[in-house]
Amino acid sequence: MDPSLSSLWSPISGGITSPRGFKASGIRSNLKPSGNLDLALLLAPNDSICAGTFTQSSIRAACVDLCKNRLHQNNGRVRSVLINSGQANACVGDRGLIDTLKAIEAVAKKLCLTPSEVLMCSTGVIGQPIPMDNLLDGIDNLVEHLNENGGNSAAQAILTTDLIDKQIAFEAFLGDRRVRIGGMAKGSGMIHPNMATMLGYLTCDVGIDSELWHKMIKRVVNSSFNAISVDGDTSTNDTFLAFNAGNSLENKYFEALEVGLLKTSQYLAKSIARDGEGANCLIEVHVEGTRTDDDARHIAKIICSSSLVKTAIHGKDPNWGRILAALGRSRVSFSLQDVSLWIGSYQLIQTGEPIQFERQQVTNYMKKKFSGKYLEEDSVLIRLVVGPGKCQGVAWGCDLSSQYVAINADYTT
Amino acid sequence: MDPSLSSLWSPISGGITSPRGFKASGIRSNLKPSGNLDLALLLAPNDSICAGTFTQSSIRAACVDLCKNRLHQNNGRVRSVLINSGQANACVGDRGLIDTLKAIEAVAKKLCLTPSEVLMCSTGVIGQPIPMDNLLDGIDNLVEHLNENGGNSAAQAILTTDLIDKQIAFEAFLGDRRVRIGGMAKGSGMIHPNMATMLGYLTCDVGIDSELWHKMIKRVVNSSFNAISVDGDTSTNDTFLAFNAGNSLENKYFEALEVGLLKTSQYLAKSIARDGEGANCLIEVHVEGTRTDDDARHIAKIICSSSLVKTAIHGKDPNWGRILAALGRSRVSFSLQDVSLWIGSYQLIQTGEPIQFERQQVTNYMKKKFSGKYLEEDSVLIRLVVGPGKCQGVAWGCDLSSQYVAINADYTT
Repeated sequence: MDPSLSSLWSPISGGITSPRGFKASGIRSNLKPSGNLDLALLLAPNDSICAGTFTQSSIRAACVDLCKNRLHQNNGRVRSVLINSGQANACVGDRGLIDTLKAIEAVAKKLCLTPSEVLMCSTGVIGQPIPMDNLLDGIDNLVEHLNENGGNSAAQAILTTDLIDKQIAFEAFLGDRRVRIGGMAKGSGMIHPNMATMLGYLTCDVGIDSELWHKMIKRVVNSSFNAISVDGDTSTNDTFLAFNAGNSLENKYFEALEVGLLKTSQYLAKSIARDGEGANCLIEVHVEGTRTDDDARHIAKIICSSSLVKTAIHGKDPNWGRILAALGRSRVSFSLQDVSLWIGSYQLIQTGEPIQFERQQVTNYMKKKFSGKYLEEDSVLIRLVVGPGKCQGVAWGCDLSSQYVAINADYTT
Repeated sequence: MDPSLSSLWSPISGGITSPRGFKASGIRSNLKPSGNLDLALLLAPNDSICAGTFTQSSIRAACVDLCKNRLHQNNGRVRSVLINSGQANACVGDRGLIDTLKAIEAVAKKLCLTPSEVLMCSTGVIGQPIPMDNLLDGIDNLVEHLNENGGNSAAQAILTTDLIDKQIAFEAFLGDRRVRIGGMAKGSGMIHPNMATMLGYLTCDVGIDSELWHKMIKRVVNSSFNAISVDGDTSTNDTFLAFNAGNSLENKYFEALEVGLLKTSQYLAKSIARDGEGANCLIEVHVEGTRTDDDARHIAKIICSSSLVKTAIHGKDPNWGRILAALGRSRVSFSLQDVSLWIGSYQLIQTGEPIQFERQQVTNYMKKKFSGKYLEEDSVLIRLVVGPGKCQGVAWGCDLSSQYVAINADYTT
């Protein structure tokens, strides 16, 4: 994709209800002991198309398979998604599916939709069923609160152990048309005791047919949500749903649109990595010179996931031996004498051999602090060239701190 | 293999020089700043056969490829191995191979062997070449110290960041024959700043031809060194070498012999996992009911490697959701309704659904302390049945503590 297209898109305040015609709401329905918002609803315009990607885990909540099957059967024609936080509703036996169907039926009835037009996602404690009376009691209130500024409440209501909410909206003028994309997400990796799940939602006010939309979203997810790692664990409930609705767009703008979808998804994905439990900085790894983009992304993910690399970055230690060791076990073939390595703008390895560098300068560069804001400056950049190939890939992760261990070990469920 | 054969083998004091005819030595040769022993030599009897397994990393020290090629070319007929600690001699350009060849030549000359009968292993800092003058100055002294009680000095001289040395010997009477197996190893995962490498050595005073020995050792390594994980990282220098020499044995005792080889290798492998930096206990995961042993071992390794499982065990938290989540991402197919799970003797999941258990009892069971001794009692046992299959596998790991992060982050190279 043409990187200059990225500048067409400006961040605007808002989230999933920024694109025209989308409504959302988020309420308290007594699902969480904390008393925080815990039930969210998104309603898309009546011509909407949805594409989804789901956890690769073979242990999945019933709602995940239901979303997947429904999108397939309806060729993407769904209108709404209900999201509860507090209980993952996974590993609860047959009750998981029964409760999901009951909740969907109640929402569909209130919205005057058929149940097949409604999806559901759950996030929270594995092995805990949803307190269904509380959830069903909340549906009327939830639907009544639906409105075109409801994105913020929805973004709050889907959180579990996240420190900050994760939402963004971008706007571009494509020809004479104002196009908006919005998104929200939750998750800080599957890293909290029993807590699970990355959820992501995207909305867009351009109508795109189901087949093309599915392809676009699959590419976008590969370069965003599939390119982050907090602790290498996959949840039972991971789900990303992308809705579009509205007038169609001239084909010549499709590439620019996909750049916007990618920007939105990458922002959300990076927010999840940045909010990794105990994380102090975002790690961004660029790999170039492979034969396929997948190879490059695979290497980048292995480096981002290495506990040794993550602890070195936490300790501001420009420890290139660990980065090369992670590269070495990637099972992508390359020659060491083609490998060059940079941290920030500092080159540490040239064509396979270490070169002299000012350790203190690199350490200073690595002293990034987590700002929680939409800033590139808190990323530690690692760049690797591994060969003469034309392909490249990027992945994101976070440092590994003692707080990660404390949060995940010393908290007893 | 028949598990009752295990009782034939009794642990005896000693190590690699316990089997008849093997000599070793370990000396100071000013390779390590600490002044500890840093150069080791093993000399096998003149009818010896050696089999080796090596790192899967594509970034390897020159000595690894040299060992591999030499064993292949000589059909296992090598006599001796030189081991230096302090420098991995990896990622140092052409010098790596040149220095390895020089060191081997010096040892061969002093031992009156051809260079092709001598191997070399290096462990220590990646990117640092060996101070060759110091190493070469030490060769005479090293060879002069070779003796039949030298196993202990050698076991000390190969250590880098290990807290304890790792050596063991077993003895069995097979028919009227006394058979001994000895071993030593180093490594606490590739988890120290810039430090790398798991090295393992085994000796046995039964003559076995090269082809059969290679097959035995491959199977044994699969169920021992390839079944441990400290932090998921593979080093540039990982090497395991197994020597045999002596009179041959009746075929009917081969299975019993292999049980002894496995016991020795598992002891060493578990010692490495137990000595994982910051580790307080050994985690032992048994998986049953798969279609292949490899599937079972693969699942067991994924569970042992999960940061979430490792931190939960550190926190004495019987968090079965994390164990199931790790199982779910193993990509081995199974049905959740076939899955049952135990921690120690406490069952937490029966055929896919959580069952009531006394949390405090399980937490008490998990309060294992690292003893550093040859004790089974400091393992936290996790047992999973995942289906009706007949196969099974075991893997070992260690808990993840704040000390791991402190050691790997706060130490600056």
